[in-house]
Amino acid sequence: MVVKSQIKFIKSLQQKKYRVQHGLFVAEGIKMVQDLLNSDVKPFKIYSTDSIALATGVAILELISEETLKKISGLVTPNKAVAIFNMPKIKPVNFSDWVVALDDVRDPGNLGTIIRLCDWFGIKHLICSKNSVDCYNPKVLQATMGSIARVNIVYEELTTFLKGQDVPIYGAFMEGTSIYNNIFPVKGILLMGNEANGISKEVAELVSKKISIPQFGNQTAESLNVATATAILLSEIRKAKS
Amino acid sequence: MVVKSQIKFIKSLQQKKYRVQHGLFVAEGIKMVQDLLNSDVKPFKIYSTDSIALATGVAILELISEETLKKISGLVTPNKAVAIFNMPKIKPVNFSDWVVALDDVRDPGNLGTIIRLCDWFGIKHLICSKNSVDCYNPKVLQATMGSIARVNIVYEELTTFLKGQDVPIYGAFMEGTSIYNNIFPVKGILLMGNEANGISKEVAELVSKKISIPQFGNQTAESLNVATATAILLSEIRKAKS
Repeated sequence: MVVKSQIKFIKSLQQKKYRVQHGLFVAEGIKMVQDLLNSDVKPFKIYSTDSIALATGVAILELISEETLKKISGLVTPNKAVAIFNMPKIKPVNFSDWVVALDDVRDPGNLGTIIRLCDWFGIKHLICSKNSVDCYNPKVLQATMGSIARVNIVYEELTTFLKGQDVPIYGAFMEGTSIYNNIFPVKGILLMGNEANGISKEVAELVSKKISIPQFGNQTAESLNVATATAILLSEIRKAKS
Repeated sequence: MVVKSQIKFIKSLQQKKYRVQHGLFVAEGIKMVQDLLNSDVKPFKIYSTDSIALATGVAILELISEETLKKISGLVTPNKAVAIFNMPKIKPVNFSDWVVALDDVRDPGNLGTIIRLCDWFGIKHLICSKNSVDCYNPKVLQATMGSIARVNIVYEELTTFLKGQDVPIYGAFMEGTSIYNNIFPVKGILLMGNEANGISKEVAELVSKKISIPQFGNQTAESLNVATATAILLSEIRKAKS
């Protein structure tokens, strides 16, 4: 039985303030929960309407009714499971391979897609500026499709953090040199900017090389979305290695 | 003054059935409406709370109150303008350059992003299977950022349509050959599949070459989203030309 105080507690984890306070986050949906159970992320408590779908972590599994699921879920259409996990321990960033850094990416769907891209392209570390959207935001989590368990995500004061590194910083700018004429080194930092304002002036000063994805269409075309641009750039970076 | 029957009419255009019946669609937001006014798309009627922001098409502009805007808008947070446009005339597909074909892409955000990518990469024609999401769906329009005016979008029975063409069809498959070892010809059809099921069996039989974006990370990584995969593939296709 899920009592009122527990419902309140689970719902409170929809907010960053309470996630940070407890070191916990909420994941929803059978697939996402199963993915996290198969990873290093430690489960705290699992609620599900389906005992068979979630074979792992039985000890902390509580079977609930559809009605209770609706009460504890943050989704309009809950999908069988709501689980609380311990936030994974943050590891130090290893610069022996490419890493991605984000300067104030605010849209949850964009951050989720970028985490999923990092996972696909084997990028182990993602550095987010302090004002970037929280990676445990439920909308981010939904967009990651479980990749959150396989990418080390750190939140740092970006200027200070990047200043200390001795690998080249490649920043995506509208006026950068074409990526098609560029040879990417074996390691570096791929820096992507905010959806509306791009890379901030302060951070831009630390960039070693400004790069750009050439435009082939109408000059009035809206610039590429930050997540699609990241997809193209990571593909180019990995291609250079393959 | 916007009377009740007009409100009902504008709202009805949120549904495909009525859009097709009248040959009209609704666009919202100052930027999108302005973008469409600057294009070949013919406006039918414009409602706005702001007379200065929309200088063009004055004759058909009706100034409305915030209250009326809320009544006719399909958005939770309306943005100054709601406009009705005539659907652009569908042009015949020209295969002298690359075109994109979609086999049942259902997510409005994905189709919108792909239209925006076509615009960026100078792809003039987009062929959608009959079961693909409607390109005048309000959520698709929001994601296109005005690109809808610059890409010719046709809905066709895909198997029949593709059978008649004599350009190579490159299909994105998980098991295709790596795009990094591929040289793209100067023209062709880039075929992308449904979010959950990929390219259908029937359409797959028409594919000249199966291509794939190599994975570098964990084997359990979720496959790339169809819009991000399209971004990477279009970049490779245009790179070959540059």
